[in-house]
Amino acid sequence: MASVFSRIVSGEIPSYKIAEDDNYFAFLDIHPLVRGHTLVIPKVEVNKLFDLEDEIYQGIFPFCKKIATAIESSFTCDRVAMMVIGLEVPHAHIHLMPINAMGDVDFRKPKLQLDGEEMIQIASKIKSNLTI
Amino acid sequence: MASVFSRIVSGEIPSYKIAEDDNYFAFLDIHPLVRGHTLVIPKVEVNKLFDLEDEIYQGIFPFCKKIATAIESSFTCDRVAMMVIGLEVPHAHIHLMPINAMGDVDFRKPKLQLDGEEMIQIASKIKSNLTI
Repeated sequence: MASVFSRIVSGEIPSYKIAEDDNYFAFLDIHPLVRGHTLVIPKVEVNKLFDLEDEIYQGIFPFCKKIATAIESSFTCDRVAMMVIGLEVPHAHIHLMPINAMGDVDFRKPKLQLDGEEMIQIASKIKSNLTI
Repeated sequence: MASVFSRIVSGEIPSYKIAEDDNYFAFLDIHPLVRGHTLVIPKVEVNKLFDLEDEIYQGIFPFCKKIATAIESSFTCDRVAMMVIGLEVPHAHIHLMPINAMGDVDFRKPKLQLDGEEMIQIASKIKSNLTI
């Protein structure tokens, strides 16, 4: 069965999409640690990032940089963190988060509960700063 | 003044080195969250990873992959996490950590206190699995 992320890429599960190209897809994390918390995934369904074939592995980082630059322009933050943990969903994914303090990247704290309207506004803001 | 990481690269401050090439340097985090916790840095002193010039930015990821593969071979773990936070030292750095649970990447928990002998053994084990 397709991973939840593959079902997001196909559109079967809706998402707040930020950007997409032939190989990668970026969308808001539905359980954000901070406003602007975004996931970047390869469209190919591989469990671990380091197991991606070289071309897809290398290509995800310039894609991430474009998204991260747009996130940094969209929020008051010190910088954008990039985190690959991957224990939750067996489909490689990179978290990008605007942060100001170490507590912003604490994955064990309660997630934000944002309504759909705010998620749409956040996605729209990031997209308006994208130069892809 | 040179960053603490530049002083490690120059050898002024000692470190448990894992690997080095013309542009990058990998060494054990002296305040590890888990055994095998490694830092990868560009030798050029730039605060934020996403501000590295494209060639250095792109090159750090294949270097990380080699180190991560060696770490994964050296410890009993589900996978190797890759985290870029960067609030602590203004010299871009990537954390690589063998992990089994979300708690392994909690940067606010107390760090491990490992003696020099164990740090040497850990570095030696990772280096023995390196294919660089």
